[in-house]
Amino acid sequence: MGKKRVCIVGSGNWGSAIAKIIGKNVRDRSELFEETVMMYMYEELVDGRKLTEIVNTEHENVKYLPGIKLPDNIVAVPDVVEASKDADILVFVIPHQFVKTTCRSMAGKIKKDAVAVSLIKGFDQTPEVGIQLISTVIHDMLNIDCAVLMGANLAHEVAEEQFCETTIGAATEEEGNLIKEVFETPYFRCSVVTDAQTVEMCGALKNVVAIGAGIVDGLKMGDNTKAAVIRLGLMEMVAFGEMFIPGCTRETFFESCGVADLVATCHGGRNRTLGEAVVQSEKTLKELEKEILHGQSFQGPLVAREIYSMLEQKKLTERFPLFTAIHQICKREMDPRAFIECLRNHPEHL
Amino acid sequence: MGKKRVCIVGSGNWGSAIAKIIGKNVRDRSELFEETVMMYMYEELVDGRKLTEIVNTEHENVKYLPGIKLPDNIVAVPDVVEASKDADILVFVIPHQFVKTTCRSMAGKIKKDAVAVSLIKGFDQTPEVGIQLISTVIHDMLNIDCAVLMGANLAHEVAEEQFCETTIGAATEEEGNLIKEVFETPYFRCSVVTDAQTVEMCGALKNVVAIGAGIVDGLKMGDNTKAAVIRLGLMEMVAFGEMFIPGCTRETFFESCGVADLVATCHGGRNRTLGEAVVQSEKTLKELEKEILHGQSFQGPLVAREIYSMLEQKKLTERFPLFTAIHQICKREMDPRAFIECLRNHPEHL
Repeated sequence: MGKKRVCIVGSGNWGSAIAKIIGKNVRDRSELFEETVMMYMYEELVDGRKLTEIVNTEHENVKYLPGIKLPDNIVAVPDVVEASKDADILVFVIPHQFVKTTCRSMAGKIKKDAVAVSLIKGFDQTPEVGIQLISTVIHDMLNIDCAVLMGANLAHEVAEEQFCETTIGAATEEEGNLIKEVFETPYFRCSVVTDAQTVEMCGALKNVVAIGAGIVDGLKMGDNTKAAVIRLGLMEMVAFGEMFIPGCTRETFFESCGVADLVATCHGGRNRTLGEAVVQSEKTLKELEKEILHGQSFQGPLVAREIYSMLEQKKLTERFPLFTAIHQICKREMDPRAFIECLRNHPEHL
Repeated sequence: MGKKRVCIVGSGNWGSAIAKIIGKNVRDRSELFEETVMMYMYEELVDGRKLTEIVNTEHENVKYLPGIKLPDNIVAVPDVVEASKDADILVFVIPHQFVKTTCRSMAGKIKKDAVAVSLIKGFDQTPEVGIQLISTVIHDMLNIDCAVLMGANLAHEVAEEQFCETTIGAATEEEGNLIKEVFETPYFRCSVVTDAQTVEMCGALKNVVAIGAGIVDGLKMGDNTKAAVIRLGLMEMVAFGEMFIPGCTRETFFESCGVADLVATCHGGRNRTLGEAVVQSEKTLKELEKEILHGQSFQGPLVAREIYSMLEQKKLTERFPLFTAIHQICKREMDPRAFIECLRNHPEHL
């Protein structure tokens, strides 16, 4: 078995933080990996200079992760085909709305036995297919296995080497263990599970629950109520997984991708902020996005909307009162002050 | 089956909050319960008046739960034998250090087929027996079944009727469902499980984990690290339950007594405060107790100490690095700055 070549597809905040880890690991584990790691970077100009050139000379992503040095074996490449064509392990860490166009460029031009790892949180959504996991999109478009890596991992904390955990979901333990060699460090601890779809689903659904936690904060209710909302949200995530994901096990929710990421997201993060803002003002979601995210979209409401249409179609909204209420509150079809009323007769209490 | 008579053994902050619920429930469910509820209250003087007399005329526990009216069918009684002798359901809600003396007074003087419910968090600890569940002490001393009720339930939030959840652990579903009739309201939602010992154990061990969460706060580490510590703490709680509690199931940790109470305690609560203080000063535990709790004891370090001696005896400290480190930090045998080092090679990551 020859040495594996790793390519990072993406170079934003999280992509750069993970590049710092990967660059060091492939050097430390030179019996397993080729030293040079290509990093696909969408080209842009910073003060008149190309960002790839800055990264390749100063070894710092001055735009998306300023102040953090990247190892000098990370090579920024502005062409995704050039960056990925010889890679054995493709680490996807681009915004989810660019996955399809990126895969379209790569299709047919990568190694047939390459393996992908998606670090992208969220679902893909089309009117035709509805919700699809990002790993499914990558798998279907590139015809290769796609594992996932998700956990309570804020990019800047990882870049500062603060201790945290993450979960790798892979088709087999063997594949998972190889991927672990790419990512694990003393401050970034990886657990491997084979229930990959549940790992990925947790990364999307937690953002819906976090809106609920934010609503509780906005209503100035106490720690008990917030804990109840987080727990009921977790139980709806479990029920959703058990209904819609083949092979979903409850064990996976005990991993970092489950309870840990949920707890972190419900106490920090932008979807919690959104929930709070929805109570404190009468503004629409669009207005709040303009105000808080400068026009970007919140993940939680998108996921809530897709989940809702799926549950409605299957006549399951009563089984998921928290998900349902959060969707209706985000659409301003329900007063956030009515949120708790929807939880009093939760199926979990019967 | 005749109507059941409920007695509340205890009348502090939590006892009074739960009395408000019980008084209303027995009236609303008069087909099941006798209207009058005796509440054993340790007699003390408040501005020269007996506290029982104040409660029985003004229907307010002015000392321990001021500002909250109690239903007038709650009758405070200063003699525990008098209060409990005719009861079918005995709700224990006294500080854990008074359980044995109270049971000693009651033994042989209560109904033979009475059922107890303990709302008391913590373990009983003696040099001879080591750790014992409070429910076991009550069961052994009174020779009756003892169920438990535990969850993310801060007394003042419950008294203010803020929505929350709790978990009832009972020997049988039937017993659990009867107890649920005593406690459930639209703002206090009860789930019943038969894994009662795990429910009770969670109520004690979460306080150890909360010290760890406080240490992370004291060290000014981020949300990722805190989430990792909470999750690793949860996994040690699970491992401890699976090793030492017959019939312990992982499902129970998804209940309010498990993940919800843990999350609430790790974000509020006095044991979290202790963890933070241990980092920020060089003071001993005794000094911090004097300063923060006016001489009362923190629960977490007591539990951590007993757990530690049990694990050490069984040569299991390496399987529980978080519990072990927290004990050593509380004893000032370890620098709290070394806490995270102990978690880097946690058995959960292997």
